[in-house]
Amino acid sequence: MASVFTKIINGDLPCYKIFEDDLTLSFLAIDQVTEGHTLVIPKMEVNHWLDVPEEIYLKIHANSQKIGKAVKLFTKAERILTVAVGFEVPHYHLHLIPAWSMGDLDFKKGKRLDPQEMERIQKGIVAQLKAIG
Amino acid sequence: MASVFTKIINGDLPCYKIFEDDLTLSFLAIDQVTEGHTLVIPKMEVNHWLDVPEEIYLKIHANSQKIGKAVKLFTKAERILTVAVGFEVPHYHLHLIPAWSMGDLDFKKGKRLDPQEMERIQKGIVAQLKAIG
Repeated sequence: MASVFTKIINGDLPCYKIFEDDLTLSFLAIDQVTEGHTLVIPKMEVNHWLDVPEEIYLKIHANSQKIGKAVKLFTKAERILTVAVGFEVPHYHLHLIPAWSMGDLDFKKGKRLDPQEMERIQKGIVAQLKAIG
Repeated sequence: MASVFTKIINGDLPCYKIFEDDLTLSFLAIDQVTEGHTLVIPKMEVNHWLDVPEEIYLKIHANSQKIGKAVKLFTKAERILTVAVGFEVPHYHLHLIPAWSMGDLDFKKGKRLDPQEMERIQKGIVAQLKAIG
C-alpha cells in the first residue's frame, strides 16, 4: 500500500508545500511540534534512510540546508533541529524543527493548526526561500 | 576557545574513533543513549548545520550512510535515528542513535560506559565498517 507520503506526492492527499524538485518534496508537518515544523522527503518510497540511494539522500540534505535557512528566517528560531525517526510512517522523512531549547525536541508537542495558520506559515517560509534564491 | 570536538580532532582529548577523513570525524558519543551511539562531525568548527559549507555537509551525510549501516549491523537495532540538536556543544554534530522504539529518542538515557565496553563497541562497529568496504 502506498505510504501517506506517496499519496501526498501523487496528489491524492493535500499538503502545505514548501519546495519540490524531481527527487524530493518538502511540506509542513501535519502535527506542528513548533510553528514552522517542516518535512523533507524523497519521492522514492524507501522506509529507512540507510537504504535511500546516495544521490537522493544527498539531494535531500542539500535542499534541507536551503529550506532550513528559510524556516529559521521565518520563525526566528534559535536553532533548527534535524531529526529522522521513522517508527510511524515507513517512508523516510527528515524533520526540520524550529527550536528555542532542548525541550522542543518532543514529538508529543505536535498539534494541528487551523488551515489559515498553516497557510500563513507556508507562505512565510516560501517567501523566505524565494528571497534566499 | 576550541570546542570539545575541536580538542578531540586535534588529539588533545581522546575518543573512541570510528572513522576519519580529511573533512570529517566519527566517534562514539561519550554518553551512550543506546549502545553504539555514534557522532559524525565536520573538522571545521561550525556551530549550526545551516552554516556548514555544502561540500562538507554532504560529506558528513554520505559518510553517515556508511557508518550508520555499520552501527546497525553491529547493534542489530531496528532503526538508526539521526538527530542534530546543538544546544550543548557549539560545533555541529550528527547523532546516530540505534533504536528499537520511539522511547530511544531520549538524551536523558545517555550514560557513561566502562572503557572496556566502549572499546568493544568501537571495535565491533569498525569491523562492520571494514566489512562493508
